[in-house]
Amino acid sequence: MQLMFLGTSAGRPTKTRNVTAAALVLPDPLHVFWLFDAGEGTQHRMLGSKLKLNRLEKIFITHLHGDHIYGLPGLLSSRSYFEGAVPLELIGPPGIKAFIEGVFALSGTHLEYEFTIREVEPGLILENDRFKVTADTLVHRLPCYGYRIEEKESPGPLKLERLAEFGLKPGPEYGQLKRGEDVQLADGTWIRSSEVAGKPLKGRIVTILGDTSPCDAAIALAKDADLLVHEATFAPGMEEKAAAYGHSTSMQAAQIALEANVKTLVLTHFSSRLCAEDVEQLVQAAQTLIPDTRAAEDYSEIAITRPERG
Amino acid sequence: MQLMFLGTSAGRPTKTRNVTAAALVLPDPLHVFWLFDAGEGTQHRMLGSKLKLNRLEKIFITHLHGDHIYGLPGLLSSRSYFEGAVPLELIGPPGIKAFIEGVFALSGTHLEYEFTIREVEPGLILENDRFKVTADTLVHRLPCYGYRIEEKESPGPLKLERLAEFGLKPGPEYGQLKRGEDVQLADGTWIRSSEVAGKPLKGRIVTILGDTSPCDAAIALAKDADLLVHEATFAPGMEEKAAAYGHSTSMQAAQIALEANVKTLVLTHFSSRLCAEDVEQLVQAAQTLIPDTRAAEDYSEIAITRPERG
Repeated sequence: MQLMFLGTSAGRPTKTRNVTAAALVLPDPLHVFWLFDAGEGTQHRMLGSKLKLNRLEKIFITHLHGDHIYGLPGLLSSRSYFEGAVPLELIGPPGIKAFIEGVFALSGTHLEYEFTIREVEPGLILENDRFKVTADTLVHRLPCYGYRIEEKESPGPLKLERLAEFGLKPGPEYGQLKRGEDVQLADGTWIRSSEVAGKPLKGRIVTILGDTSPCDAAIALAKDADLLVHEATFAPGMEEKAAAYGHSTSMQAAQIALEANVKTLVLTHFSSRLCAEDVEQLVQAAQTLIPDTRAAEDYSEIAITRPERG
Repeated sequence: MQLMFLGTSAGRPTKTRNVTAAALVLPDPLHVFWLFDAGEGTQHRMLGSKLKLNRLEKIFITHLHGDHIYGLPGLLSSRSYFEGAVPLELIGPPGIKAFIEGVFALSGTHLEYEFTIREVEPGLILENDRFKVTADTLVHRLPCYGYRIEEKESPGPLKLERLAEFGLKPGPEYGQLKRGEDVQLADGTWIRSSEVAGKPLKGRIVTILGDTSPCDAAIALAKDADLLVHEATFAPGMEEKAAAYGHSTSMQAAQIALEANVKTLVLTHFSSRLCAEDVEQLVQAAQTLIPDTRAAEDYSEIAITRPERG
């Protein structure tokens, strides 16, 4: 499971940072990825990465500001050129449907793959056998969501030496035991799953927030997260300006991460007026609260490892 | 006067070609440029060029297909970051106003400079003391325009040795004589403009067409042009497919240029499936009809020199 940043600038692109987008590459064997926001040029950034549009399964939009959505129409159009595309679902705040449908109607665009748009309200928005995704409303100039992605527990590894004692060879029974089902052998012996399966593996928690001023919803969404992606549009000391525009400084982001007990904090959405040195200072400030704080760079990849059992 | 290509691919961007856009840099001392189409990522291409968004004076849109307009909202938004911006006018076919206004309303975008949108019908769409721009309808799947930019004649250079004979020193009278006005000296002598002004300099003609199948309007728009920009989505031999999608092959583009008596033909809007070698071959084919045929590349600049007096 990896997060790859495709755009890390606020408002407008710079020579080194594109506007906001990040791809969450789901763990094997899923071979798909999810996209969080799609500023203009997101499909261009993908051309320079290993990400292929036909493996894009879901797009989550935090809010409708241009630097988070203007890359959507082109990305969706270009996806028609790819063969073997999995169905794609676009999830976002109310208005996202009108945006896509309005643009496509005027530009005469028709997609050649299965595509759905779902406008969501805060709460549980997605649950399958591997993941649970919840959304909540942040504090910004437009309705803006943060997303919490919780991976479910996975069955622990089987104790192979115990299975050998039972004389059970690899086969469908291994899967049953892994899933918690007991298995009866031909001689009538029962193998209890609890005897041969290791402890379940804890799932990962990744929280990706849209633009926001500090708020309780951000803390709740990020609670105990292995990775929190938080905007840091401004440098510490710019709190007043940040508040006026519905944004945060890096120190405010770190404070949220601290209160939420976050392991790794990744800062992004840097004002286009900040130079590389400014960003470094802004990260160093946040590290005083959260030692594992990093600055997102375009194309930087962050591996999200399974947490130890707490 | 120069034309700089910012995107030369059809439909979707590739690693080397972005979707359609071209900038016409107007002759000194105007210090402004006009943009023709704005596919997604046009503002990104500009970041790597000498073009500054605050000097963009007009945008002409050929048609509403996504690969020609999806870069507009982001480019217009980013322009608000530039100081000293000249007023900007967006000119395009009916629907362009609904596109921009719809997108801006949903994304809460407000521009911080003087901006107007004008939907035009075919005919004379712009005339000032330097230029005349006419539009006509081409043959495509959506209403699509071609634009003919005619530079007006400029006064010829003054014959300085004749002025010396009259004893006239440089001053406001030079301008009057250049503009065709006669001037009376203090001793009552009249200097006739026709005696001291050289022949007027002929203006340049640049024709930039949107996506099209071969048609009479293309020939009329390109008549005697110094430079014709014509799409060549497909290679020669693909005429049937080209017709089905409202496009042209490079040979069809050259045939139009030949019938219009064009001096330089620049081919662009190449299918994303064509490799560099394919494009080379496609240009070589066109050169059998128009020797000065060139392939547009992203960032290629073409200087447009004044024509000799015919």
